[in-house]
Amino acid sequence: MNASWWLEPVQAVDESYAQAARKRQAQLTKPPGSLGELETIAIRLCGLQRCDRPHIERAHITVFAADHGVAEEGVSAFPQAVTVEMLRNFARGGAAISVLARALNATLEVVNVGTVGNPGPLPGVIDNRIAAGTANFFHARAMSEAQLAAALQAGAESVERAHGQHADIFIGGEMGIANTTSATAVACALLNAAASRLSGPGTGLDNAGIQHKARVIDQALASQRFSADDSLDILRCFGGFEIAALTGAYLRCAQLAMPVLVDGYIASVAALCALQVQTKASVWFFYGHHSAEPGHRLVMEKIAARPLLQLGMRLGEGSGAAAALPLMRLACALHNQMATFAEAGVSEAL
Amino acid sequence: MNASWWLEPVQAVDESYAQAARKRQAQLTKPPGSLGELETIAIRLCGLQRCDRPHIERAHITVFAADHGVAEEGVSAFPQAVTVEMLRNFARGGAAISVLARALNATLEVVNVGTVGNPGPLPGVIDNRIAAGTANFFHARAMSEAQLAAALQAGAESVERAHGQHADIFIGGEMGIANTTSATAVACALLNAAASRLSGPGTGLDNAGIQHKARVIDQALASQRFSADDSLDILRCFGGFEIAALTGAYLRCAQLAMPVLVDGYIASVAALCALQVQTKASVWFFYGHHSAEPGHRLVMEKIAARPLLQLGMRLGEGSGAAAALPLMRLACALHNQMATFAEAGVSEAL
Repeated sequence: MNASWWLEPVQAVDESYAQAARKRQAQLTKPPGSLGELETIAIRLCGLQRCDRPHIERAHITVFAADHGVAEEGVSAFPQAVTVEMLRNFARGGAAISVLARALNATLEVVNVGTVGNPGPLPGVIDNRIAAGTANFFHARAMSEAQLAAALQAGAESVERAHGQHADIFIGGEMGIANTTSATAVACALLNAAASRLSGPGTGLDNAGIQHKARVIDQALASQRFSADDSLDILRCFGGFEIAALTGAYLRCAQLAMPVLVDGYIASVAALCALQVQTKASVWFFYGHHSAEPGHRLVMEKIAARPLLQLGMRLGEGSGAAAALPLMRLACALHNQMATFAEAGVSEAL
Repeated sequence: MNASWWLEPVQAVDESYAQAARKRQAQLTKPPGSLGELETIAIRLCGLQRCDRPHIERAHITVFAADHGVAEEGVSAFPQAVTVEMLRNFARGGAAISVLARALNATLEVVNVGTVGNPGPLPGVIDNRIAAGTANFFHARAMSEAQLAAALQAGAESVERAHGQHADIFIGGEMGIANTTSATAVACALLNAAASRLSGPGTGLDNAGIQHKARVIDQALASQRFSADDSLDILRCFGGFEIAALTGAYLRCAQLAMPVLVDGYIASVAALCALQVQTKASVWFFYGHHSAEPGHRLVMEKIAARPLLQLGMRLGEGSGAAAALPLMRLACALHNQMATFAEAGVSEAL
C-alpha cells in the first residue's frame, strides 16, 4: 500500500437513497417514527449501500490481539500470559466472541499483531506480529513509526479480506492485557483530560488499582511530547498494535464503503483516532455498545454518538458490537419486508 | 377455568440452579461480570428453567387486538378502522411484528379480543371477540365484570397454547386505536398520578392532542370510583380487552413457569396490573424495550425494572420485546458454549 494510504479519500453517503428510504419509512404500516433507531439504521444503510433495500447478512469480525509494555507497571488484574492463552481460546472456539460469531453466523478472523510469546501456528489466527509487544510507554514511545504503519496496515488488510469476501459490515475487536491502560492514555491525550476521569477497572482492578493505573497514565502523559491534534502520533506514544490496527481498519472501511459496527471503549478510542485523521469517515460508523468503562462516556460525547446497547458489558473482543448486530439485521428486515399503507389497505393518520 | 384462577399460586425460581449458574459465569474465560446483563439473563433463566444450560429457542408471540370506546373522544391520531385493517395486515405478514416474528423464527398468533368491526375469518387470527370494543370510559366503566374475566381468560388461553407447543418464552403484544389512552388511565389510577405526567403522543398526537388526551383521562379518573389497590377493578374502569388479556397472559405465564419478555409501555402497564395481583410473578418477567412514551418511565420505576433496549421505539405489537429477543438467545449461547478457564488453559486473575 502507498505510504500515508490512510489519507486517501473516504466514500460518501448517497443522500438520494437515504431520502428515498426516509420516504419509504413514512409509508410503512406504523405510526411515523415509531421504530425509533431501527428506522435511522435502515435509512443510513440505504445511503451507505446505495440501495433501496439494505442488507447486513454477511458480517466479518476481526479480533486484533497484542501485548503491551506498560503491563509491567502492574496495571491489569490478569497476567500478560493471558493474551496468548486467549489466542488459543479463540482458535478453539471457546471465547465469548467465538460463541457470538457462531450464533450470528458471522465470519471470525483473529490477527496476532504482536504478542510477547509466539503461540505457534493456530487455526484461524493470522500471524502478523509486528513486535513482541509494544515498548512500555511509561518510559518510552510505545512504538516506532514503522511499527505504527505496520499496525495500521494490518488493520487495513483485514478489511480488504472482508471486502473481498463481500462482507456487508465489519466488526473490529481487540484482546491484549493492559490495553484499557493504553486506550485510556490515548483518549486522555486526544481529549486533554486527566486520567482519573477516564480510568476504570478494565478486567477487574479494585479502587487502589484504578488509582495506580491513572497515576501511571498521568505521569506518562506528562513525560512524553505529543500534539493533541495528531492521533497517529498519539498512537505511537501510547497506543497498542491492536488499537492502531483498529484505527487502520476503520479508515480502510470508510475508503472501501464498508459499514462498521464499532465495539466498546477501546474500539471507540480507535474510532476517535480514525475520525481525527478523516472526519468524513464518521458516516460509516455505527456504535454497538456503551461500555461500563467510565472513559467511554467521554469518548462518545466527543464523537457525538450514542451506542445501540447499554448492557453493562466491558469485555472487548468485539462482543458489544456483536450483541448489537441482530438489531441492524432486524432494522433491514423491517425496512424491506413491511407493507406500506397502500399495499395493506390501512388508513393513514387523520 | 376456575373463577379467580389468576389467584392460584405462581411458580418460584429454583435458587440452587441460579447459584450454580452464577458459579459457572465466574469460571468462563472473561473478566468476572464483564458480560453485564447478558450474565444476569443467563443466571435468571437457569433458576427459572431449573437447568444448567438455559434455552430460548422457541419464542411464542401473541398480539391481542381490540377497540376502545374512548376513541370517540378524539384521542388518537389514527381512525378506529385501523384496528381491523391492521388485523388483516398481521394476517398477510406485512406488519412490523409479522416481519420480526419471521426474522426471529418465532411463532406469531393474533387474537381478536374485541374489535368494533367483524373482519371475518383471517388466517392466523383467532376470533375471540368479547364485545364490539369497550365502553367509552369517559362516560362509563370500560367493561363488565364478565367481560374482564373473559379478557383475562383469553390471555391465559393463549399462554396455554404456547405452553402446549413447548415455547421457551412468551411475548405479548397489543394493537388497538386509542389504547395508549386506556393504558395511561390505568397507570394513572395505579400510580395515583395526574395524566399530564404520563400522557404522550401515542401514534402521533401533537402537543394540543396530548393535552386533550390528558384532560379526558383526568376527568374520567375523577368521575369513576375505584381503589388504587385493585388493578383488576381499575382494568374494568379504564382498561382495554387487549390490556386485560395481557394481564391474564402474564399471570398465567407465572403459573405455568413460562418466562415472559414484556414489550413497551402498554404491555408494562399490563405487567404492573399483574404484579399487583401477584407480586411473586415478577421473577418471570424480563423487559424488552423502554418506550419513547413518557409514561413508561414511571411504570418502570414502580416495577423497579430496567428494559434491555432503549431505541426510541413506540410501536407496540410486541415489537420492542421482539427486538430484544436476540439478546436473550445470545446470553444463553454464551453461558452454554464459552470455555471455562480450566477447559481453555487460561490463567485467572492475579
